[in-house]
Amino acid sequence: MRTKIQITENIINEVNSKLMEIEKEINTTRLKESYKYLVSNGGKRFRPLMTTLSCAMFTSDYLLAVNQGTAIELLHNFTLVHDDIMDKSPLRRGKETIYQKWDDTTAILLGDLILGLSCKSLKIGLEPTQGMKAMSVFNSGLVEVCDGQGYDLEFETRTDISLEEYEMMIERKTGSLIKVSFVIGGIAGNATDEELEKLALVGNELGKAFQLQDDLLDIIGKQKEFGKKTGQDIIEGKKTYLIIKAKENAKKIEHLELLDKFFKNSGLDEKEVPIMKAMFEELNIIEDVRNLVDEKFEFVFKLIKEIRDNEYSDILIELLNEYKTRAV
Amino acid sequence: MRTKIQITENIINEVNSKLMEIEKEINTTRLKESYKYLVSNGGKRFRPLMTTLSCAMFTSDYLLAVNQGTAIELLHNFTLVHDDIMDKSPLRRGKETIYQKWDDTTAILLGDLILGLSCKSLKIGLEPTQGMKAMSVFNSGLVEVCDGQGYDLEFETRTDISLEEYEMMIERKTGSLIKVSFVIGGIAGNATDEELEKLALVGNELGKAFQLQDDLLDIIGKQKEFGKKTGQDIIEGKKTYLIIKAKENAKKIEHLELLDKFFKNSGLDEKEVPIMKAMFEELNIIEDVRNLVDEKFEFVFKLIKEIRDNEYSDILIELLNEYKTRAV
Repeated sequence: MRTKIQITENIINEVNSKLMEIEKEINTTRLKESYKYLVSNGGKRFRPLMTTLSCAMFTSDYLLAVNQGTAIELLHNFTLVHDDIMDKSPLRRGKETIYQKWDDTTAILLGDLILGLSCKSLKIGLEPTQGMKAMSVFNSGLVEVCDGQGYDLEFETRTDISLEEYEMMIERKTGSLIKVSFVIGGIAGNATDEELEKLALVGNELGKAFQLQDDLLDIIGKQKEFGKKTGQDIIEGKKTYLIIKAKENAKKIEHLELLDKFFKNSGLDEKEVPIMKAMFEELNIIEDVRNLVDEKFEFVFKLIKEIRDNEYSDILIELLNEYKTRAV
Repeated sequence: MRTKIQITENIINEVNSKLMEIEKEINTTRLKESYKYLVSNGGKRFRPLMTTLSCAMFTSDYLLAVNQGTAIELLHNFTLVHDDIMDKSPLRRGKETIYQKWDDTTAILLGDLILGLSCKSLKIGLEPTQGMKAMSVFNSGLVEVCDGQGYDLEFETRTDISLEEYEMMIERKTGSLIKVSFVIGGIAGNATDEELEKLALVGNELGKAFQLQDDLLDIIGKQKEFGKKTGQDIIEGKKTYLIIKAKENAKKIEHLELLDKFFKNSGLDEKEVPIMKAMFEELNIIEDVRNLVDEKFEFVFKLIKEIRDNEYSDILIELLNEYKTRAV
């Protein structure tokens, strides 16, 4: 029996070689170079792994949906390249972002181009009815991601965001592409509509779990492993799940004052991060979020087993278990 | 018999009402408002007219492809919104551009969103095989437009662009969406592959004709009608067909010096526009381009009649004849 490591390595290699092939479709120098730089960023190819393994659960062919996985990796990269301009992020995974290394124009155009290339890759090898279904899911995903980013920008200037609103935003901004990954894998594997609905739920819950984990890792993650400074979200004034939960639960005067300061100044000083962390602990928020993440993962594992219980659902679960302590 | 005016008005009204309906899919305030502002810009809806009339030649139903026409209008608007950021154009048709009225972030995100909404509209009412074909043409068009914009940006810093290169660039940047308009109309009307090839040629040649006309109108157009200052391209240092042709043909020392100055300073002073115009006239370039535009239109009219000779091909030709002296 092939091991999980062999299979995931094969998938990642296939996706990477598809991404390199696609470079040939780009004619101009700046776009070609920025594309190469972008796709050789050593991404974990999490979304293509989900797509191909989702398909493999139904077909036992773990490379059948590799073009669809590549399409979703490109769609994901499109969102990163444009988001980095909007969020003015100079670095991603320790490397300069496209707009920072080149300029806004290159980043806007490269994003647009890879979205076009992504759509082209999506339909390769699909039957017309599968293709139409996949396009429909893909397009809805694209609209949802933009919608989520719209909410995220709107929330920047608001201090009264509820947990429901926050969850709705991350469901769109982070969750939708993970949902799309699973569902399109299922479509390529000719899953039934009922199975597709379950796959959508898997993706949805996973997306939320990853975002909560991301919010949590900001405060409890080891700086080196996680690749960013501990407490960066607090310093930058990001309204994470932890902050919103704290705002809903805080009653002590010093907690309320700390949160007031955070909202008023759009973030805190680096030296105040431990005070914020202490407040999260006192309010039991870190423990609560950890439990919530665990619950969501358990729910997802159970649901995957319910959809199919075979070699590939095992690999999928094994892989997701590893991701439980990482960012995607 | 319904008149051309009634039919085109009906199409434009239908497209406008589809565009307004689509607004309901947008949730956040800034995106909603900027979308409304964008689609109520009184655009001529040239591309949807081409799509719906192209379809009507085969089906006699001039509203059958209205969703596809709306999709292409959105795709067109997506390119305008992003191009305006890249080209730093503060105005379009006398109104502030999106990035200028809001900001870069809004313009990037609105563009991305309307591309997603465009894809959704494209497939409405199409059979799976038609849908796959339409998506394929649409995606290739998107990649070509980005490619054309890439060349355009690359050409900005070059002074040695040949006429072939210029034509190749405008074929992609301007021509491809006009080509896509005709071909997708044909697909919605179940045209044969041979007919689709002819429609592609119609779109291609029209695209070139319109760009040449645009280049020409900059220097001979009446300021008010054309909506921009006479000689604006010369002032801005834009390498139009006329400039490239002049560079290839100029021999006189004063012409060579004028062109040198144009390239060196990336444009000329407003008062030098008449000198440039005089050079174009002396080199017979204005006459040549005018003839070239006429030839292309005649070729297109003949080809349309060859595809179908009916009420709708007549309306299409009549309409295009009006556009012969306008920008699209």
